[in-house]
Amino acid sequence: MSNRSSRAKPVASVPEVVILRLPQYVRVLNQLQQKGTEVVSSQQLGNLLQVTPAQIRKDLSYFGRFGKQGRGYSVSHLLTELKQILGLDRRWNVALVGVGRLGRAIISYPGFAPEGFDIVAAFDSSPKIVGQVVGNLFIQPVEEMAETVRNKKVSIGIIAVPAAHAQEVMDMMVQAGIRAILNYAPTTPQTPPGVKVRNLDPVHALQSMTYYLIDGA
Amino acid sequence: MSNRSSRAKPVASVPEVVILRLPQYVRVLNQLQQKGTEVVSSQQLGNLLQVTPAQIRKDLSYFGRFGKQGRGYSVSHLLTELKQILGLDRRWNVALVGVGRLGRAIISYPGFAPEGFDIVAAFDSSPKIVGQVVGNLFIQPVEEMAETVRNKKVSIGIIAVPAAHAQEVMDMMVQAGIRAILNYAPTTPQTPPGVKVRNLDPVHALQSMTYYLIDGA
Repeated sequence: MSNRSSRAKPVASVPEVVILRLPQYVRVLNQLQQKGTEVVSSQQLGNLLQVTPAQIRKDLSYFGRFGKQGRGYSVSHLLTELKQILGLDRRWNVALVGVGRLGRAIISYPGFAPEGFDIVAAFDSSPKIVGQVVGNLFIQPVEEMAETVRNKKVSIGIIAVPAAHAQEVMDMMVQAGIRAILNYAPTTPQTPPGVKVRNLDPVHALQSMTYYLIDGA
Repeated sequence: MSNRSSRAKPVASVPEVVILRLPQYVRVLNQLQQKGTEVVSSQQLGNLLQVTPAQIRKDLSYFGRFGKQGRGYSVSHLLTELKQILGLDRRWNVALVGVGRLGRAIISYPGFAPEGFDIVAAFDSSPKIVGQVVGNLFIQPVEEMAETVRNKKVSIGIIAVPAAHAQEVMDMMVQAGIRAILNYAPTTPQTPPGVKVRNLDPVHALQSMTYYLIDGA
């Protein structure tokens, strides 16, 4: 497994908002590379990412110098470095809990594997669902989570259970040693320190936009 | 339709990060109200929301005074005010574009309507899909979007098309007068000023967590 000595060391503690932006940099740099672009200015990158060139330079400055003054960034170099910084130059094993309609859609989502994320285990608490095969996965009882996480070197958990069970599932995942969780349940579970959670809740997303519609509607 | 004169006026321009937190306040206050809690301190609210009490007070200060010094907040009053501020005291009409597997899951998702979001129209570009009935919706050709948005008073769009078509669909939505868009496509389309977009991209969410796993794994 890679460790921080193999990647550009951050020169200061990196704000989470920067880490949240960097995957978009990677995406845009990938697109540029596919188009054959070799060098990109912070101005061009800023246009593509809808942030200011100053923000781009500041974000990248946390990890040292990537560009030469006035000459722009090498697309392939910046892409390689950012992927290494974010841990996107390797594969990650993922476990899913909750194999209802949403969980099945997640298992069959074709977007994860090409980006290095492999769902290697799936769990449910319902005796009707345990034992089924979905995709290539044999659905296991949740009681087997800790052992499977250890044996299959799972680093990331996905929660796709109803809101009422999300906290319980998160606690089990953390207990099993998982430190990064993608939560699809429409609730915000309490998270212990050192554990990262991203919530993918469409209702919350809608509720954070209507404020801006009231005057204009 | 409500307008800003009927809700607490912000005393200053409200940072977007505050607007992003407020729906979580609403959720937690709803839970407290269901449990019969009448008064809550910023300390208790902070614990439930995993932010500091000082942050809670600062967030709410944008909208005036909600609590009395040392007495905490009235749960029902704060909930009513925040729902009004966010526009969650009314219903919103939503149009979906893209009725593949993901779009169908979105139409049948039971979480939207109870929170005031009604999907009233669905569009696709495929002649195989147009004309089908999914849920209670007759799938329309995308060419009818502008007219339907106007006739059905649609305020919000949901994009559930492949990444390659997301920009085109967003442009059509904006052209039709939509100012708030929930984007499920794994790409970040360019957004004109005055339009809000929330991206629900699971791969991006995963890619923003792996950074934190590298040393600890």
